[in-house]
Amino acid sequence: MALILQKYGGTSVANIERIRKVAERVIRVHTAGNDVVVVLSAMAGVTDGLIQLAYQITNDPNRRELDVLLATGEQTTVSLLCIMLESMGCPAISLLGYQAEIVTNTAFGRARIVGIHADRIKELLGQRKIVAVAGFQGRDEQGNITTLGRGGSDISAVALAAALKAYVCEIYTDVDGVYTTDPNLCKNAKKLQKISYDEMLEMASLGANVLQIRAVEFAKKFNVPIHVRSSFMEEEGTMVVEEEEDMERLVVSGVAYSKDEARITLTRVPDQPGVASKIFTPIAEAGIVVDMIIQNTRKSGLTDLTFTVPKSDYPRAMAIQKEVAESIGAEQVLGDEYIAKVSVIGVGMRSHSGVACKMFTTLARENINIMLISTSEIKISCVIEEKYTELAVRVLHNAFGLDSISENF
Amino acid sequence: MALILQKYGGTSVANIERIRKVAERVIRVHTAGNDVVVVLSAMAGVTDGLIQLAYQITNDPNRRELDVLLATGEQTTVSLLCIMLESMGCPAISLLGYQAEIVTNTAFGRARIVGIHADRIKELLGQRKIVAVAGFQGRDEQGNITTLGRGGSDISAVALAAALKAYVCEIYTDVDGVYTTDPNLCKNAKKLQKISYDEMLEMASLGANVLQIRAVEFAKKFNVPIHVRSSFMEEEGTMVVEEEEDMERLVVSGVAYSKDEARITLTRVPDQPGVASKIFTPIAEAGIVVDMIIQNTRKSGLTDLTFTVPKSDYPRAMAIQKEVAESIGAEQVLGDEYIAKVSVIGVGMRSHSGVACKMFTTLARENINIMLISTSEIKISCVIEEKYTELAVRVLHNAFGLDSISENF
Repeated sequence: MALILQKYGGTSVANIERIRKVAERVIRVHTAGNDVVVVLSAMAGVTDGLIQLAYQITNDPNRRELDVLLATGEQTTVSLLCIMLESMGCPAISLLGYQAEIVTNTAFGRARIVGIHADRIKELLGQRKIVAVAGFQGRDEQGNITTLGRGGSDISAVALAAALKAYVCEIYTDVDGVYTTDPNLCKNAKKLQKISYDEMLEMASLGANVLQIRAVEFAKKFNVPIHVRSSFMEEEGTMVVEEEEDMERLVVSGVAYSKDEARITLTRVPDQPGVASKIFTPIAEAGIVVDMIIQNTRKSGLTDLTFTVPKSDYPRAMAIQKEVAESIGAEQVLGDEYIAKVSVIGVGMRSHSGVACKMFTTLARENINIMLISTSEIKISCVIEEKYTELAVRVLHNAFGLDSISENF
Repeated sequence: MALILQKYGGTSVANIERIRKVAERVIRVHTAGNDVVVVLSAMAGVTDGLIQLAYQITNDPNRRELDVLLATGEQTTVSLLCIMLESMGCPAISLLGYQAEIVTNTAFGRARIVGIHADRIKELLGQRKIVAVAGFQGRDEQGNITTLGRGGSDISAVALAAALKAYVCEIYTDVDGVYTTDPNLCKNAKKLQKISYDEMLEMASLGANVLQIRAVEFAKKFNVPIHVRSSFMEEEGTMVVEEEEDMERLVVSGVAYSKDEARITLTRVPDQPGVASKIFTPIAEAGIVVDMIIQNTRKSGLTDLTFTVPKSDYPRAMAIQKEVAESIGAEQVLGDEYIAKVSVIGVGMRSHSGVACKMFTTLARENINIMLISTSEIKISCVIEEKYTELAVRVLHNAFGLDSISENF
């Protein structure tokens, strides 16, 4: 029998009834002879509620203390699950981040795991106990409580699975797997049986909110097989695994999109050495992450420069660029919040040419103008007008043959 | 300057506004040059809410896990207070039970403190930080979270004050001190400036819910001066201290009452060796605490036996005694839930005779029948009909001169 790690998200433990369902599932797997470690998130909405409470006090709550506050969310769910399991006659024990010896650095609110001492968990598993570990939290070297940032429970789960050499890390969520694209947008979206870590990384960073991106990186690094599945049904979900030969059958395995960015253009910028630095240094100093950059050279030593930033940073970035434009003598600063990034992703691209060409042709056929393009080894992204997002996703999904794959290809 | 320990109860931290008031008070004391350690309870109602949540799952929640759940209450308040203090520019740090190294035995839900390693707190105080410690919780030798039972935050506070050799342990609550009797019952009740540990113990055990009884025992053992006062006003409250010479000026310093008991009488019990054991052994085995016992010998080798039990245990105790009565051949079992215990308390009794006599005479003058009597060195208690409680308290309060003492005697 195997060691199975199961992680349940906030909607899966949102109330006592759902916690009961989780307990039943855990007991089934345990009774079949497996060892089970469960990682839980806080009940849906609880973490946001606690953050709001802190912000009633100040807009800049002390980070160490905010982590102490937030850690109560997962503490509540692990204790409730263990009370439930014990009441059903199944031996269980909860461990908080520090008790599970999940050691992190001291970056409160966005701590990184530096090590896990899994001896205690192994000992408890040896006693045939179900071990419920509070996700999202750890402790630093000094014993302070730390949290891992948004989606941190996924990271806790994968890290524990790696430390314990679990057979699989099952991520239970409110969707039943990873789809070729957003099923809400495209009725022909198909659930993928398998996806590679690299594809999942591109999907995650492009707005498919199934798995936390750092968790996927961690899984890739330690080769932890992830099984993304729904806690509301029995059906299998999607395996996120190392790239395999047969994955390359599909050239493109998914179409992702994101509406979280805005575009800024500086026109008629003097094309001189050092200008790019003057434009991007103040943006970087403000902690704003620039995603895509494109430069169109005009005649007469002038150039237009366009880049994208997260929509939430757009007002600040615009203000900064207006000052920059003045100082470098650019003509004007244009901004556009109504853009979307549409991407096709697939490890098969490595060995297939013509993917970019097909993508551009498909969009052109619908008269969708491409503003910016960026590519990686396994991804091509195009920025388009926001209003065409749904259309673009659907036509690309069809063009790359995803409409017609069977669910169990 | 001194080390001041302040403990705030649930009503004092019931919401963000009250936590702000607490922070302001703490900062005033700190700014005056004192070191301050703050112990907090959970927000009023939170602990009960968590218990209810657990009981939605089962009537017998796993005790270890229940403690993990309950510990979130104080974790929330200490982190919020520190966020508040830091936002006001005052360096502060929260410590949970295990971080403050409050070590207990493993009796989950009613753990006893076995030691406190105060080095960390001393170090933090040395950095001029305000240290906010979560009350009510500790850790056992294995690192499990434990809780100290009802009113446990008082115990945390006194134990920390003892370990740190604090100048005073201030207990902030929703009353402004210890009164000669319940002010809701007797408008002439006076706030005491000082009371001895022993008197406070008798007051606490007799239903004056100001201080947790184990906390007073602890304070007495380690000679920690307690200052009971209100968090809603500036005025000084009542000092609970070692007995001093001048305390004996008052023969009786308080009148307490309790309606929490019920009375059971077995009539015509054969007066033979071993009968008392047959009556009280099954009661003890059921975990029921008997308070007062009285036996009236009749003629012809028969006796009536009366005792009191907590009202919550009354139905179980009655059921047990009905079986017992049959097996020992007693005539019948009579029960009475409508009783009250009225007590006069004072260290001055030790050196003054006639207190009991005056108590009985005073009650008799009002035609209040005394059903049971018990005494200690500094206390006399009478069980009477419940309906006479208020009258009895008022006439005793007057008879022992408490109506006329000045507030600053």
